[in-house]
Amino acid sequence: MTLSKQEMLNNYCLETGKALNNDIEKQVMELFALSSQTTTIEEKINKIFDEFSEEFLNAIDTNTRIDLDFLVGNFSDSQIPVQPIDFESYLKCLGNNVVAHSINTSSPRFIGHMTSALPSFVRPLAKLMTAMNQNVVKIETAKALSFCEREALAMLHRLIYNFSDNFYSQHIQNNLSTLGILVSGGTVANITALWCARNAILGAKDGFLGIEKEGLAAALDFYGYKGAVIIGSELMHFSFDKAADLMGIGTQSLIRIPADSNNRVNIQALRQAVVECRAQNLLIIGIVGVAGTTDSGGVDSLFEIAEIAQEANVHFHVDAAWGGPLIFSEQHRHKLAGIERADSVTIDGHKQLYLPMGIGMVFLRDPYMATAIEKQASYTMRKGSFDLGKRALEGSRPGMALFLHAGLNLLGLKGYEFLIDEGIRKTEYMADRICTMPEFELLAEPDTNLLIYRYIPEQLRELVIKKQLTEIDNQLINQFNERLQKIQRQIGRTFISRTTKTTTSFSKEIPIIALRAVIANPLTTEEDIDAVLNDQIQIASEIVISNFQKIV
Amino acid sequence: MTLSKQEMLNNYCLETGKALNNDIEKQVMELFALSSQTTTIEEKINKIFDEFSEEFLNAIDTNTRIDLDFLVGNFSDSQIPVQPIDFESYLKCLGNNVVAHSINTSSPRFIGHMTSALPSFVRPLAKLMTAMNQNVVKIETAKALSFCEREALAMLHRLIYNFSDNFYSQHIQNNLSTLGILVSGGTVANITALWCARNAILGAKDGFLGIEKEGLAAALDFYGYKGAVIIGSELMHFSFDKAADLMGIGTQSLIRIPADSNNRVNIQALRQAVVECRAQNLLIIGIVGVAGTTDSGGVDSLFEIAEIAQEANVHFHVDAAWGGPLIFSEQHRHKLAGIERADSVTIDGHKQLYLPMGIGMVFLRDPYMATAIEKQASYTMRKGSFDLGKRALEGSRPGMALFLHAGLNLLGLKGYEFLIDEGIRKTEYMADRICTMPEFELLAEPDTNLLIYRYIPEQLRELVIKKQLTEIDNQLINQFNERLQKIQRQIGRTFISRTTKTTTSFSKEIPIIALRAVIANPLTTEEDIDAVLNDQIQIASEIVISNFQKIV
Repeated sequence: MTLSKQEMLNNYCLETGKALNNDIEKQVMELFALSSQTTTIEEKINKIFDEFSEEFLNAIDTNTRIDLDFLVGNFSDSQIPVQPIDFESYLKCLGNNVVAHSINTSSPRFIGHMTSALPSFVRPLAKLMTAMNQNVVKIETAKALSFCEREALAMLHRLIYNFSDNFYSQHIQNNLSTLGILVSGGTVANITALWCARNAILGAKDGFLGIEKEGLAAALDFYGYKGAVIIGSELMHFSFDKAADLMGIGTQSLIRIPADSNNRVNIQALRQAVVECRAQNLLIIGIVGVAGTTDSGGVDSLFEIAEIAQEANVHFHVDAAWGGPLIFSEQHRHKLAGIERADSVTIDGHKQLYLPMGIGMVFLRDPYMATAIEKQASYTMRKGSFDLGKRALEGSRPGMALFLHAGLNLLGLKGYEFLIDEGIRKTEYMADRICTMPEFELLAEPDTNLLIYRYIPEQLRELVIKKQLTEIDNQLINQFNERLQKIQRQIGRTFISRTTKTTTSFSKEIPIIALRAVIANPLTTEEDIDAVLNDQIQIASEIVISNFQKIV
Repeated sequence: MTLSKQEMLNNYCLETGKALNNDIEKQVMELFALSSQTTTIEEKINKIFDEFSEEFLNAIDTNTRIDLDFLVGNFSDSQIPVQPIDFESYLKCLGNNVVAHSINTSSPRFIGHMTSALPSFVRPLAKLMTAMNQNVVKIETAKALSFCEREALAMLHRLIYNFSDNFYSQHIQNNLSTLGILVSGGTVANITALWCARNAILGAKDGFLGIEKEGLAAALDFYGYKGAVIIGSELMHFSFDKAADLMGIGTQSLIRIPADSNNRVNIQALRQAVVECRAQNLLIIGIVGVAGTTDSGGVDSLFEIAEIAQEANVHFHVDAAWGGPLIFSEQHRHKLAGIERADSVTIDGHKQLYLPMGIGMVFLRDPYMATAIEKQASYTMRKGSFDLGKRALEGSRPGMALFLHAGLNLLGLKGYEFLIDEGIRKTEYMADRICTMPEFELLAEPDTNLLIYRYIPEQLRELVIKKQLTEIDNQLINQFNERLQKIQRQIGRTFISRTTKTTTSFSKEIPIIALRAVIANPLTTEEDIDAVLNDQIQIASEIVISNFQKIV
């Protein structure tokens, strides 16, 4: 059992014999003491945390079985302790209550979300970044790092757009140019891209001061539009709902075009939507192509979407938060063909660049596009400065560029290519295994390294083969898979996520609950994949006996 | 001199004797190897980075004298290396090119921006956070941490609002409630607050689906408004410009009310603006109170603004990104009186909570207000779940709550109180010193721990005392102070930032360039403050001789 805070405090007082209300200064100043001073608190904490990390990272199970209700009880104190808690007690508490019951997102058998084991250099680098504590909003608080960030972003820009040497020498460290913006994640990247697109298309002109100053209603009025929309696949990430909501066009103006059975947007329908929006005098702020849907990894036909966008003279944004790094792979790069025609591209560093959480990026074909969102302030972000915060949604932000720069250099093109190829190879292995196992049904051919499938209870396998499942059969299978996934998660030996896919059965749209595998972790072996599937079979066998019969 | 990447690569190949295009697998898998395996890369990197950190943190100078132009040359490579760079060479490069030329934001003599030395526990904690790599967007990738985050936010919520035990037991771990949202920084916090306010006031009603779905124009139309505005001090942070732009109302609809000479919004003018907006049938999305202006630390009369907002039934947002933690201090808390009446409050963890960059927070008085921005997706963020990403601007995000939780516990109320009191005490010391030194003029009485002042060249001191400075005199003083600040920054022994303050001289508004001190670092002593002022006097003496005479 863990100690309550009052108990910790009491222990602390007993141990140290200190009265409570003096020596706060001493305690605080000890916490701020520099590491060069002998036997510091930092060294002790370091040692304890290294033990936590080692145990955590070496675990195979994906999480402990502890109930959420029990956890709630550990975190129900709304009072900040008056006196500092003795740090050894606090760290023990942290180990028992937080670390122990965190999700082992790097386990080779946690193959259900877009997380992975990370290269070891990110851990010491996190400490260095925090020690340096640069604020990349401006050059005065992040000198070399501002240039380092620009270099790393230019490298990825070049991988996408492959402009000339001349282009890059002109723009890479030019404070008027923005090749990319480092943000906290893919959501902010997508919002930023559409914000740039909206402001650029509805800019200042003939006495109109632009949407930035005058707002959306005045801008649509000035330019003579009835409304504004964003068009993309129905499988667009929900960050586009946030963008449409935030930017004032409303989520109804996010036009979601049906995807085909392989999770790619229907190009004909997309083209038709563009025509209809034109006919209705609606401004198309942007057309979105998805390179790796969150659901199933499907990649839209970017080249065809680029054609449509170019013909219509509309901003083309590619959400490649997940799939962007396919560009590292000679073998799989062709799936992204057309991405080089995008006006903006989102890529997440914390997904397939194998970097820690908190690294999103948006790349801009036109180095001057971000001026559409530029802001200044007298205390910072001065015009003509190298301050990176001038053209960004966020203000103060950490030096996450260190991870990106290190990743690109320490893994290199070939290192990332290996990681991408391996993920897709192992996904194909898993797809093959699923196809040979009677217990499972593959729900879509994988485009990349996401896989959706489901478990079929024995009684219904015959009907699956004959394609004779009724809607009620599907509902039963849905219930079964939802239960299976929940139990699997609760037991915590392995992990697969779940999603809902809409399918057509007997001319009726029905929701199908799918199990969803994401295979990106280089530590995941074929044996691990077998172990995950076998874990599901074992769990399913118990559901059949104890619960499923009742449902049927 | 540092090696080029090709040279590094050659060295690597010579040393290891490896051919370039094989063994990528081995190199990559080594980087992903777990730390329990003997003599790992991680241990080596750790050792090198600890040396970097120690040297960096123990430096007194605020930065090296290296020119930006020279730095540009170090970061002008737009090609990702094909093969992984040998890590020892890369780390050397990182040390020489990035770490060495980063800003010592924790130096006791870097008192110009909102950075400080940090408590030592944040450095090992950063490594632990990265090792755990939780994604707090959903419970499936951040089990205990989701509850830990809610607890830490509830603690600060209680410090602001001080509702009953009953209130907190009801909401602290209730997945329908949102007491606060952890975001990447104050900008996203401010945007989130106003987004909530906008969506709540223009919600679904009588067949209208709400602004979220139908957009701003339809919402204003349905509710019968001519437009929408946000009202606050002219000293509001530029994140409100971003909010007004992004949300589609336009920055012209951000009504900036003049501040008085103490940098507090003029209450009469604010009240008048509310009346005028009403008369013009403009919806007031929110009234913003500033608790610690970025420029000079001024705190608006929150209580009076709360009165106005309450009478007008308008959302009251307090931007306490900087000044919020004054609430920890018995002595200074009264300056925030009225904050407990705010509908939403922004506080930055990476400012006066002494935590690393990347921790912004918005607190909500009404635990159900954030439902106005709630989004769902089938693969995650399910209704009824504990997924924190349901009600947030951002999606995937790191477990920064670990820092917040640790800070609140390891420093406690008394620890934070000490830090706040000390910062303000030392600021008063600096203000006193400035007033006694003929070289300087104090430009405003400090409200908190920001101080604005300027250097007065000897020739003009008499006129300052007699209050006879002309506009041209002020222009000369402006030029002088700008030059002084730039040289001081370039030399890098000490650091003070600069800003522009508007003042009235002979009935004319003129800009005054001010030197700006921010005194939050507990390692900053009175001697350090003297050293900063003496550094400026010494630099100024050289400007007078070599440059200033020419201008005059």
